[in-house]
Amino acid sequence: MITQQTMRVLLAERPVNRPARPSDFLIERAPLRDLEDGEVLVRTIYLSLDPYMRGRMSAVKSYTAPVAVGDVMAGEVVGEVVASRDPAFAPGTHVLGDAGWQSHAILPGRILTPVARDGLPLSHHLGVLGMPGMTAYFALLDVCRPRAGETVLVSAAAGAVGQIVCQIAKLQGCRVVATAGADDKVAWLKDELGVDAAINYKGKDADRLAADLKEACPDGIDVFFDNVGGVLHDAVMRRLAMHGRIVICGTISVYDSLEQPEIGPRWLRQILVKRARIQGFLVSDYADRRSEFLDRMKQWLADGRVRYREDIAEGLERAPEAFIGMMAGANRGKQLVRVGAEDLP
Amino acid sequence: MITQQTMRVLLAERPVNRPARPSDFLIERAPLRDLEDGEVLVRTIYLSLDPYMRGRMSAVKSYTAPVAVGDVMAGEVVGEVVASRDPAFAPGTHVLGDAGWQSHAILPGRILTPVARDGLPLSHHLGVLGMPGMTAYFALLDVCRPRAGETVLVSAAAGAVGQIVCQIAKLQGCRVVATAGADDKVAWLKDELGVDAAINYKGKDADRLAADLKEACPDGIDVFFDNVGGVLHDAVMRRLAMHGRIVICGTISVYDSLEQPEIGPRWLRQILVKRARIQGFLVSDYADRRSEFLDRMKQWLADGRVRYREDIAEGLERAPEAFIGMMAGANRGKQLVRVGAEDLP
Repeated sequence: MITQQTMRVLLAERPVNRPARPSDFLIERAPLRDLEDGEVLVRTIYLSLDPYMRGRMSAVKSYTAPVAVGDVMAGEVVGEVVASRDPAFAPGTHVLGDAGWQSHAILPGRILTPVARDGLPLSHHLGVLGMPGMTAYFALLDVCRPRAGETVLVSAAAGAVGQIVCQIAKLQGCRVVATAGADDKVAWLKDELGVDAAINYKGKDADRLAADLKEACPDGIDVFFDNVGGVLHDAVMRRLAMHGRIVICGTISVYDSLEQPEIGPRWLRQILVKRARIQGFLVSDYADRRSEFLDRMKQWLADGRVRYREDIAEGLERAPEAFIGMMAGANRGKQLVRVGAEDLP
Repeated sequence: MITQQTMRVLLAERPVNRPARPSDFLIERAPLRDLEDGEVLVRTIYLSLDPYMRGRMSAVKSYTAPVAVGDVMAGEVVGEVVASRDPAFAPGTHVLGDAGWQSHAILPGRILTPVARDGLPLSHHLGVLGMPGMTAYFALLDVCRPRAGETVLVSAAAGAVGQIVCQIAKLQGCRVVATAGADDKVAWLKDELGVDAAINYKGKDADRLAADLKEACPDGIDVFFDNVGGVLHDAVMRRLAMHGRIVICGTISVYDSLEQPEIGPRWLRQILVKRARIQGFLVSDYADRRSEFLDRMKQWLADGRVRYREDIAEGLERAPEAFIGMMAGANRGKQLVRVGAEDLP
């Protein structure tokens, strides 16, 4: 064996409804065992740190299993194979994989992806060419489908995912508005990435944010690429454009209180975890498909496969009372008012 | 003229953050003028009462313009043409149109739709064959796309839209769970419409509702057809199945407080009005499209069209500190830890 031990970071304690702190982690050295068939020893070069890791420190069920207390913190690394009993991975090969927070890891070769050193920094495979890059690319292009001229708002825009979203949106010909939590981030987004406007959200309430958004997004927000959750949503909703699209890629604002009940904005985490969709609907958008509907529903009624209940108030003068009752749930079935006889004598 | 006057219901006062009450309406009789070219006189037979009308009583901007104080309340009717100066509408023709809350209305023929008396009740054109029926049909089949075996939860299930949704979902082979606000509604949904389970939500908090939903939806909720908004959402989120779909067709729980700020569950109203979409995203779902992404991103990097910023902490022992800092926004760009040298000497 080239290396006799690994340095590793364990989860020592679960933070509950608070940010992580140094004492939640334990750094130790541990001996390495011999390789078995199919295993490789990887020397970590870069470890990626990502907000999802806060979720894995919690016992709350999510899209990734929790890290057990006493286990090595989970995490993706780029490393170099330094010993191998998997013929697919010769020593010296660069690989990508979930090695966790440790300097050396013994891993089955089958969970590793070889990484080409094709002139790009190795670290890029944990970012712009890795999970954050793919998140930016597909969540923006496949889920939000921005069109040229549309306004795209990006939260945590200076972060791993956000910076890539801003640039892809600009490449699509969009107006890009970014939010971040520090003035130098805002300046970098404007000066270096070329976003059209950038807002420092720190310390602002929904009213102030709504005013900032009104100025930055005069035609409303067509796409909101959200990595954060929280108060910004309340402001965004007031500026949402017709047929707006919101993709929930992260909810970092609630990661430090995962154990609290899921109400209000905390729903967003469920939307993310379940890859769910909430969509508004107005029937008038389907006016041109009315005959399709009528043909099918008349057949269902004729076949007795659909039954239908009506609640008919008698006389126009009863309309206010019937309306007030309906709003309180007093009706039984579709509320109508018979204003005149079907057939006059 | 056959009729000399109309009875009509005016909006007398706007309710602000409260339910409508009788004094918000004024019932009066008014003389009818003579018809002009292209106009018809319609005698109302049925007036439809719908929750959206509460929105039109408010001055708050929505998908329909507010009714002015002193104007006739807006509403769709089925009626009979009793006099006509539009050659397309002979007296005796049955029509559908926005005549408002009045016994007789003078309307341009072009805004009316002729209605066939083909053995179905005339009133059905305001319900199962009208706007509520189309809402149920397209919002369920086109937006939610339920599959056989999936669980569909319908709120306000005994109402105009909900009762149709329940039945179409059953026709698709779904397990249908209904909520309503009265025991007799719940009984009717189970006994008459044949839903698989029905819950009376009245007086229950999110915890109790979540327990009820757990029992009624043992495999989670695939589709939530929501006509209500409110506390039920908090419970539904806890039982949402993977790739769940929520369609917001109504938000009756907030209609009596439209003037309050749009925070938390009140967002739902914006989602409805804007026909917007909120969708969760997890990049692992796109694993099989990684090469498409890599090809494009590498080209963008090579062309200098995408720039990329990294924040690299030095040494594995700094990982906890870098992680804690990142969660608080201290990083500048993608956070990494350099655990080992890229090339060993």
